[in-house]
Amino acid sequence: MASWWWWWSEAVVVGGGTGGGSSGTVVSICVFTAVLCVCLVAGHLLEENKWVNESITALLIGCVVGAIIFLLSEGKNSRILRFDEQLFFIYVLPPIIFNAGFQVKKKQFFHNFLTIMSFGIFGVFISVAIVSTGCYWLFPKVGFGDLGAVDFLDLILFTTTALGAIFSSTDTVCTLQVISQDETPRLYSLVFGEGVVNDATSVVLFNAIKNLDITQLKGGVALKVISDFLYLFFTSTMLGVTIGLSTAYALKALYFGRHSTDREVALMALMAYLSYMLAEFLDLSGILTVFFCGIVMSHYAWHNVTESSRITTRHIFATLSFIAETFIFLYVGMDALDIDKWKTSETSFKTSLGIFGIIISLVLLGRAAFVFPLSIMSNYMSGSSEKAPITFNHQVVIWWAGLMRGAVSIALAYNQFTFSGVTLDPVHATIITSTIIVVFFTTLVFGFLTRPLISAILPHQHRQSTTPGTGGGGRSTGSNSPKDDFIMPFLSPDEEASGSGSGFLQAKRSISMLLERPVHTVHIYWRKFDDRFMRPIFGGPMERDRGNCY
Amino acid sequence: MASWWWWWSEAVVVGGGTGGGSSGTVVSICVFTAVLCVCLVAGHLLEENKWVNESITALLIGCVVGAIIFLLSEGKNSRILRFDEQLFFIYVLPPIIFNAGFQVKKKQFFHNFLTIMSFGIFGVFISVAIVSTGCYWLFPKVGFGDLGAVDFLDLILFTTTALGAIFSSTDTVCTLQVISQDETPRLYSLVFGEGVVNDATSVVLFNAIKNLDITQLKGGVALKVISDFLYLFFTSTMLGVTIGLSTAYALKALYFGRHSTDREVALMALMAYLSYMLAEFLDLSGILTVFFCGIVMSHYAWHNVTESSRITTRHIFATLSFIAETFIFLYVGMDALDIDKWKTSETSFKTSLGIFGIIISLVLLGRAAFVFPLSIMSNYMSGSSEKAPITFNHQVVIWWAGLMRGAVSIALAYNQFTFSGVTLDPVHATIITSTIIVVFFTTLVFGFLTRPLISAILPHQHRQSTTPGTGGGGRSTGSNSPKDDFIMPFLSPDEEASGSGSGFLQAKRSISMLLERPVHTVHIYWRKFDDRFMRPIFGGPMERDRGNCY
Repeated sequence: MASWWWWWSEAVVVGGGTGGGSSGTVVSICVFTAVLCVCLVAGHLLEENKWVNESITALLIGCVVGAIIFLLSEGKNSRILRFDEQLFFIYVLPPIIFNAGFQVKKKQFFHNFLTIMSFGIFGVFISVAIVSTGCYWLFPKVGFGDLGAVDFLDLILFTTTALGAIFSSTDTVCTLQVISQDETPRLYSLVFGEGVVNDATSVVLFNAIKNLDITQLKGGVALKVISDFLYLFFTSTMLGVTIGLSTAYALKALYFGRHSTDREVALMALMAYLSYMLAEFLDLSGILTVFFCGIVMSHYAWHNVTESSRITTRHIFATLSFIAETFIFLYVGMDALDIDKWKTSETSFKTSLGIFGIIISLVLLGRAAFVFPLSIMSNYMSGSSEKAPITFNHQVVIWWAGLMRGAVSIALAYNQFTFSGVTLDPVHATIITSTIIVVFFTTLVFGFLTRPLISAILPHQHRQSTTPGTGGGGRSTGSNSPKDDFIMPFLSPDEEASGSGSGFLQAKRSISMLLERPVHTVHIYWRKFDDRFMRPIFGGPMERDRGNCY
Repeated sequence: MASWWWWWSEAVVVGGGTGGGSSGTVVSICVFTAVLCVCLVAGHLLEENKWVNESITALLIGCVVGAIIFLLSEGKNSRILRFDEQLFFIYVLPPIIFNAGFQVKKKQFFHNFLTIMSFGIFGVFISVAIVSTGCYWLFPKVGFGDLGAVDFLDLILFTTTALGAIFSSTDTVCTLQVISQDETPRLYSLVFGEGVVNDATSVVLFNAIKNLDITQLKGGVALKVISDFLYLFFTSTMLGVTIGLSTAYALKALYFGRHSTDREVALMALMAYLSYMLAEFLDLSGILTVFFCGIVMSHYAWHNVTESSRITTRHIFATLSFIAETFIFLYVGMDALDIDKWKTSETSFKTSLGIFGIIISLVLLGRAAFVFPLSIMSNYMSGSSEKAPITFNHQVVIWWAGLMRGAVSIALAYNQFTFSGVTLDPVHATIITSTIIVVFFTTLVFGFLTRPLISAILPHQHRQSTTPGTGGGGRSTGSNSPKDDFIMPFLSPDEEASGSGSGFLQAKRSISMLLERPVHTVHIYWRKFDDRFMRPIFGGPMERDRGNCY
């Protein structure tokens, strides 16, 4: 027995230390799989709990497991896998983002397209600017001034901008578990849509910063970043749409369902993954590509497959995304106890506290600085339409919903400031530990407070969402019948569609609408185009069939 | 354009050379995913072709891609991934075997349990003995005598035994695409069941040989191997059954479907994977564990989940298994053109031909040496029962069906005779190249001949199986309606169940049955036990409900 324990703890240490050796890998995978199962069961049991959500559960379980490993390895180690940004960016992130695109309610998403995009793009730029400036200005005041000597002004600029990007990506998973998709669809769509675009923007911006040669581009840095960003955004989206459409066309033209439903599922999954990897290969943003690929696939390809393929794809993508998210929080929980990092970071407790306070304040401020102004602007833009404005209460919820920092922040920080999860530079180590603290704090404290806050601000909303079975989140949680899932991706028939008559009056109305509510009108024309040209080629229910599909 | 091509070929070489670097990994994954998609489409288009099956398609496409890479890299390389036996044994093999257990028709499997086991276990022992002895005796005659000097008799014994194990594992995928599950369920079950047990036995036996310290155990080698094997078989099975039952119990007791169908799917997949990894961690046979875990899960756990989870699990496991199989054949195809190996192997063309001829003859002989005797024994054992005997024609089909050598052979050979896919020893290189040739030859030639052979031997069978939609294989190919898939895993009500009266006569009958047809009787008692104790705890339809379930 004793020797078994010895071997176990040795294996854990070896697995953690080298991240390689065969027995180490087996042990790591064993422990991770087992702990993931525990998280699943715990998440299920705590589903109706008022305070705890799945992210928090996974974080805490990760901590406990980390502590156990720490004790078993006699203080040498608390984790069983070195953080590998390849692992994260190649295997863990794609299913999360693809699923986000696949499950998003496209009608709401495109109705609020401009607002979502302004939040997700300009918002991140504003937030990055505020966090970067704040860090640059405030860090020296708490004694964390040596981000680099005075000679290395570029380096400081670079580091603070990177910090800005790291702390501007949001994690909306736990908020989405609280906001009801059925009661406040607009709010849900705004928070969800912004979360996705936000993540993507952060990653793209971060890469743009990372690849800049700052010494040569001093004057035009901002312009270069923005033009890079726009180029990346456009090409990545196009690639995703192209791959999505080709998949839809292949499925429709070849009629895979005739022989095998498994081939359909495999083709969709592989093409989705291919879109991500191809974008990475071409130095585009895989995250944007796979997101739009997900949207196009659920809009066209999904309608060309057999019914069992539909059910299967909807659930496997959600399941993969769910496992990937849990995996990340678990990992962060385990990683928190990694002693080396805390040792390498040579900051005093007081300095650490100062850094932490600064970052949290900047995150709060940076988000407030764009949510409220952009919401007001959005209300003003759609002022004369019948669309309800974003109330102040809703603005507060949107502001709060994006405060949680999660997997993407961690991944960006590790990617920039460590080499395979290890850093020997005290400043970098401090940034990593600060990131971990911020992710922990925002997920645990802000996460804990989300339900009470929403119940105070949106009283009706909360009362409904605590009854079992309606707390459905972004990944079909809470839908007992598969029918719920079926309905989700459809652009259901709505009032605009029936208003599309013909003649002069109609045209005049359209023109005045175009001036008044550009997005809305574009949407109607898109619908017509979609029905007449796209759906016959790429698949999907026709306008006339949409009323009675499912 | 030119520079792009240059970069591409560089990246391919880097990716192939180091198997690591970030851009190399991205390129490898890109190419592999794209080629997998091509295989899917090609496999679909060739579905109704008389000669070609999916394994052959994947092999040939792999060859073509290998040739293209070979040309692009100017003769330096033909592959983009180094073979990593970890990759194979940790990620690719488990889904294939789990799916085999999950999809097997349990009624037929357990009815023919003794026959399948005798084929799968004793058969492999016989085959290994014949192939090993044959290699040992014949290889020196074609000039391939230096398997080791005379001093290293142990090494020769070891190598030839390893060769025996390598060439005794079968690949029944392409045969199963031709044999109809509905028309000849017994034959299908025998071929399928033997294929799985056979694979497992080869792996277990191979590991037993590998771990033996031959120098110390000369006398009792055979005994030690057999006792090791039995110990491994029993403990591995028990572990798989235990994990399967705990999953079923957790799903039933906690009623996951209330909240989220994705959690159910995730839990089943993770527990299945955990069973495999845990077995590997405990030095048991993961392949046996995950196979029995699959059987137990489809028998109990599958009935405790929501309907959409049932459809989803059935299809994702099949899809994963399908992708994994295609991946392997693709890899073997690409690997065939790897020049280094052919250079390292310093054998003349004549010797190579000799080795190839010897191995093919031994494979044919070794399989014939157990299929026919064991079939006759099986017929004799169940002689007085109403079960139909295995006709000579069926015996020929069973013999032929197991002649294809596939993924497992390749994996075992690489595992034993290379270090991360590279070998510098000429003898080892020769063994690897011979394995590749044998796999190619058996898959292509024997695979091509399978349909004509079966159409000659089982004329009625063949006529039916070429009509579209009935050529269903082991992975729900050809089933248009999801209902077909639903029905598969049930132990459908059969005539034996109704014959379970009570009283003295019944008892007497049971005893005489027990003597006459042990398996049959055991099966009836098992059914009773299952209905009374197991199903109420672990889930599944009761006897009384079984008639009208689906």
